[in-house]
Amino acid sequence: MKDVAAAAGVSLKTVSRVVNGESNVNDDLRSAVLESIAELGFRRNASARDLRQGRSGTIGLLLEDVADPFYSMLSRAVEEVAREHGTMVFAGSSAEDPDRERDLALAFCERRVDGLIIVPAGTSHSYLLPEMRAGIPAVFVDRPPGDIEADMILTDNLGGSRRGVEHLLGHGHRRIGFIGDAPEIYTAGERLRGYREALESAGIAFSDDLVTQAPPSPTSTADALDRLLEGPSPATAVLCGNSRTTVSVLRELARRSARLALVGFDDVELGDLLQPGLTVVAQDPGAMGAAAARLLFQRIAGDTAGPTQTVTIGTRLIPRGSGELPAP
Amino acid sequence: MKDVAAAAGVSLKTVSRVVNGESNVNDDLRSAVLESIAELGFRRNASARDLRQGRSGTIGLLLEDVADPFYSMLSRAVEEVAREHGTMVFAGSSAEDPDRERDLALAFCERRVDGLIIVPAGTSHSYLLPEMRAGIPAVFVDRPPGDIEADMILTDNLGGSRRGVEHLLGHGHRRIGFIGDAPEIYTAGERLRGYREALESAGIAFSDDLVTQAPPSPTSTADALDRLLEGPSPATAVLCGNSRTTVSVLRELARRSARLALVGFDDVELGDLLQPGLTVVAQDPGAMGAAAARLLFQRIAGDTAGPTQTVTIGTRLIPRGSGELPAP
Repeated sequence: MKDVAAAAGVSLKTVSRVVNGESNVNDDLRSAVLESIAELGFRRNASARDLRQGRSGTIGLLLEDVADPFYSMLSRAVEEVAREHGTMVFAGSSAEDPDRERDLALAFCERRVDGLIIVPAGTSHSYLLPEMRAGIPAVFVDRPPGDIEADMILTDNLGGSRRGVEHLLGHGHRRIGFIGDAPEIYTAGERLRGYREALESAGIAFSDDLVTQAPPSPTSTADALDRLLEGPSPATAVLCGNSRTTVSVLRELARRSARLALVGFDDVELGDLLQPGLTVVAQDPGAMGAAAARLLFQRIAGDTAGPTQTVTIGTRLIPRGSGELPAP
Repeated sequence: MKDVAAAAGVSLKTVSRVVNGESNVNDDLRSAVLESIAELGFRRNASARDLRQGRSGTIGLLLEDVADPFYSMLSRAVEEVAREHGTMVFAGSSAEDPDRERDLALAFCERRVDGLIIVPAGTSHSYLLPEMRAGIPAVFVDRPPGDIEADMILTDNLGGSRRGVEHLLGHGHRRIGFIGDAPEIYTAGERLRGYREALESAGIAFSDDLVTQAPPSPTSTADALDRLLEGPSPATAVLCGNSRTTVSVLRELARRSARLALVGFDDVELGDLLQPGLTVVAQDPGAMGAAAARLLFQRIAGDTAGPTQTVTIGTRLIPRGSGELPAP
């Protein structure tokens, strides 16, 4: 601003008046200021302005992996709502590492975000309490926070998983496997519960032999399929607990030319073009992101006295062929 | 800091010394300060600190769509390099709208990003010149900037497209179609050039009848296939100019039970599981994002005197079946 004032031959006060849109400035002086602003490429310092107003016009979005299609769709939905509020989004990936999650969340807070949307990797979030008390609301998505109370947006994991298993039961299957992510991941646990409940409601005993819980990898998938397909009474169907597992299982089944009725939890692109088409319990990451962002901006706008909210987003079963293969 | 000082019963100066890690503080006082910081949830104001230092520790990443797999992989690679530099990433989508691109880029600048990585939607970027002169370097990715000189990271679109067509020629095809994105998009134009050059090198006349250039949609794809498959001398193969077009063409071919040899530009998840597998000219969005971020941080670190750089990242042809269907 000093440079602008010098170039325009006016006082700093005059530059400030023009920049702040005050009316009590002579037209010639205003023109001179505007011209020298254009020349110097001066841009109003939004950071400084926002700091004075106690708002940064930014939010932090902490995902497991910004490159994962589920999270990238969620991210875009958050961005659209943020845009309506004139707010920019910091995005970062925890890579399923609690330390990295904590570092990123606190780095966002250091940069004075107005709020946080977090897909938690860790199970302890008390590190956020001082920030939340200092007025940075946090909304958790996909998984609940550990050891603190906060707003959260979840998929109906249990109901969706249950519906997927019921669908397979409806096609005559009795030996149904479950291949899910590591048991410490909340969604993996809920989906296993849904699997178990559906079996038990149908009077079928739950058997550990049919269940694998491990981070998706080609090796873990091959092992899981070995267990399901070997033995005197092999599985005839499988519920895959997440899209990465689904893809990994599809690759392994193709390699073995093996056939299993299959329902995947979470949709994958091109699932409709496979042969048979991929039957899935679809989540709605766009709806989750939008709901999270709307709730966050409601909190940022001052709705902080009310109780915490849990929003559960329903799933949709999309039959395309793989889940309708009949039991032998 | 005043509150911390009051709670700890020490001077503001002492709090400042503890926060700044200075050693000349009595251990008891230091403990008192740390305790009251913990109690009050005090966090050093990174924004204020960075403003004083002239750095914000942030960069802006402007993509066409953060939800698109190509851009989300690029985004993750940028994030990893930014992380090595202790820098946070603002991410935003232009949605192929030049006004939105400009608004976002300038909003990032208002928030004093240290640099910009831009997938341009518009063809004029002189609006960035004042920002760049004021010390905010910009690196363009995937497409060059319009009307300004700047660093850029591009895919070898022409060479990749040429190689895709040569691959189809090698399998006996002479009537090869091209379905690409809108002609004003740089990558679409380059890929059309590669298609044309490959044909002409093989002594095959270029024919407008075999070319469609339009934003990918089910309607435009159906029209394009109508044109390719009708008439006395239908196409026997097609090069799809981008992954959304590829997916759209695959869906339409499945609906019609029609068969065409097909090479897609840019890979898609599950392409290996289709029947036949999808042959693609694969780009490397991770390499592009990492190269863009490395060049940007080199500029931020002060390497601003050197000439602008263009980095061209090579493509890889992955044969999986669809591109190896022989000509009838």
